[in-house]
Amino acid sequence: MTPPAHPAARDSAALGAALDDPVELTARLCDIPSVSGDEARIADAVEAVLRELSAGGGPELEIVRNGDALIARTSLGLRERVLVAGHLDTVPVEDNLPTDRRVLDGREVVWGRGACDMKAGVAMQLAVARALRAPTRDVTWVFYDHEEVDASLNGLGRLAADHPQMLAADLAILGEPSNAGIEGGCNGTIRVEVTTSGVRAHSARAFMGVNAIHAAAPILAALADYEERTVTVDGLDYRESLSAVGISGGVAGNVVPDACTVVVNHRFAPSTTGAEAEARLRELFAGFDVTVVDLSEGARPGLDRPTAQAFADAVGAPVAPKLGWTDVARFSALGVPALNFGPGDPLFAHRADEHVPAAEVLAASSALLAFLEPTAPAPAWADEDAR
Amino acid sequence: MTPPAHPAARDSAALGAALDDPVELTARLCDIPSVSGDEARIADAVEAVLRELSAGGGPELEIVRNGDALIARTSLGLRERVLVAGHLDTVPVEDNLPTDRRVLDGREVVWGRGACDMKAGVAMQLAVARALRAPTRDVTWVFYDHEEVDASLNGLGRLAADHPQMLAADLAILGEPSNAGIEGGCNGTIRVEVTTSGVRAHSARAFMGVNAIHAAAPILAALADYEERTVTVDGLDYRESLSAVGISGGVAGNVVPDACTVVVNHRFAPSTTGAEAEARLRELFAGFDVTVVDLSEGARPGLDRPTAQAFADAVGAPVAPKLGWTDVARFSALGVPALNFGPGDPLFAHRADEHVPAAEVLAASSALLAFLEPTAPAPAWADEDAR
Repeated sequence: MTPPAHPAARDSAALGAALDDPVELTARLCDIPSVSGDEARIADAVEAVLRELSAGGGPELEIVRNGDALIARTSLGLRERVLVAGHLDTVPVEDNLPTDRRVLDGREVVWGRGACDMKAGVAMQLAVARALRAPTRDVTWVFYDHEEVDASLNGLGRLAADHPQMLAADLAILGEPSNAGIEGGCNGTIRVEVTTSGVRAHSARAFMGVNAIHAAAPILAALADYEERTVTVDGLDYRESLSAVGISGGVAGNVVPDACTVVVNHRFAPSTTGAEAEARLRELFAGFDVTVVDLSEGARPGLDRPTAQAFADAVGAPVAPKLGWTDVARFSALGVPALNFGPGDPLFAHRADEHVPAAEVLAASSALLAFLEPTAPAPAWADEDAR
Repeated sequence: MTPPAHPAARDSAALGAALDDPVELTARLCDIPSVSGDEARIADAVEAVLRELSAGGGPELEIVRNGDALIARTSLGLRERVLVAGHLDTVPVEDNLPTDRRVLDGREVVWGRGACDMKAGVAMQLAVARALRAPTRDVTWVFYDHEEVDASLNGLGRLAADHPQMLAADLAILGEPSNAGIEGGCNGTIRVEVTTSGVRAHSARAFMGVNAIHAAAPILAALADYEERTVTVDGLDYRESLSAVGISGGVAGNVVPDACTVVVNHRFAPSTTGAEAEARLRELFAGFDVTVVDLSEGARPGLDRPTAQAFADAVGAPVAPKLGWTDVARFSALGVPALNFGPGDPLFAHRADEHVPAAEVLAASSALLAFLEPTAPAPAWADEDAR
């Protein structure tokens, strides 16, 4: 018996052996522990795979490691450069690992934490990186850490600060789940606390106090009456929203409360700046104390750029607006048009029943390969009998 | 050196030595640990004092112990019987024991947990019990446990269930703090949860959900717009109130919430029954889910009864309505008219700066003695020089 190999070597061997099968690769990526903050092991494995690919039959890659994030770039001197990014971390496991291959509603799926968000997208990246022989567009592969936690930790944010020039591209594709369709840009998001104040008193002598919960009546009325807009940006319809996501107030069952806080989340179209969104909320809640909790700018879909349009043509599906905020906004802030494109239904992200349909993993991988190297031979995964 | 006496004997000796000075007696009662649930030691001491008084120079007392509650009755065959009740427990100590005698705004006070709520009232009971020689009204002294906690534990409630005949009286005086004035009856109190429901969704796709916090807007509007009534009962003006005392809703910062709960406390005049108050709230919040959390009937002031009126005359101060709910309602439910009468400002109850003015302790004790035995000699505490 030979002694077991070093875990990192075993991980990269497991991934390397599945590079021709993005569905199996998805499962193997999920099965490497990688909850946010614990990405070192999966980053080591992905780095080893990239170094093998660079040394193997495909185009050479310039590889940079930054914490548990990786950048791997071809430098073929081609006219356009496409960046494809995916995060390596997941939200905490809910008794849904190791992965399981099962059939759900007649469709083969990979079931388990991360399958949808977004190990399937990472599998797409690695499988296409392996299949490329002579791409017609230079490629920058980005893998990063800490996407599922506080934005200040985000690995892509760190790369943008440390290596902005290495993220330059004509188009960025973020492999977040989009049902293998293209979702353009994203709405911005702002969260504010709207607070009322009053004067505490015993509720038996309520007239001696000022009730801060009663004082919140106009805030809820404004929310209930707000008419949400739909804004067309670069041909896509962005539906805005304004939602109370929390309310709290009260001291005890016999006390008139002196404070009440409503937490409001506004999602605004990418044609609106964060400052404009904040001003909109301050006007709506004029007379109340408004504190911004967090704010992330939206991202325009960038479909007016030729590379983005070419990608949409290659995928061949209609482009939808992205309503949820994603890291595409970080590319947008760098001046790089960015689209969301990845296998999986985002509605299953973060859920105990998280899964991704195998067919979407294959379709997305094939579409990305066709865009980067239109004349590539059919990949191994397209041969149904071989799988 | 003699060994220290048994703690119970020391406690009763300490109380017994202060029976002629209700102010000092207040301090000594406070200094016996008696947070709710821990009343055995103070009940032991009070029982020992009552047994000594019964064996001493005053009228004989029939004494019943029930848990940590006590009933002590004279049986002189007089035409009227007056019950005087006080609870032995306090809310938790806030670094405000042992007591301290100090001067506040030029007035001598006893400072510390329980001084106001309601060891001063208990001191009044014991000092008067000691001063009585030939009362003109039979007296029932009641001391009880667990007033400051859940109503199901209330010692007076237990006595009413176990010994209802021993609580019979023409008038009950509850020694809760009332600034040594008379507060008649009490408002009733009902607490309800008014709940909205919705459909959970990601706040980026708010249109897929129904926001339960927005749905609470009419609840807060109804509370803010409600016009509180003042109702005259037996000549006293009871001010009603309707207060949100709590509100909660929200799942996460990016989720449209599916539930919101407003806790509402209604204080209603004693001419309104609990059932009527509940119906009033169900009508006000028609269309919402309304659940009764707790309900306590109010108590009429009973000043139409001759004994109550005689007491008011003896005290000589105008009678005010009691807005907060107190245990007088338990007597009212037994058909016994009940008034609140005790030293101390109820606004200082339960506070870290709880205290009681010495002058009120003395004045209340003197008034109660004069009512029970109009021809009694001036008590020792009325002799300023002797104190």
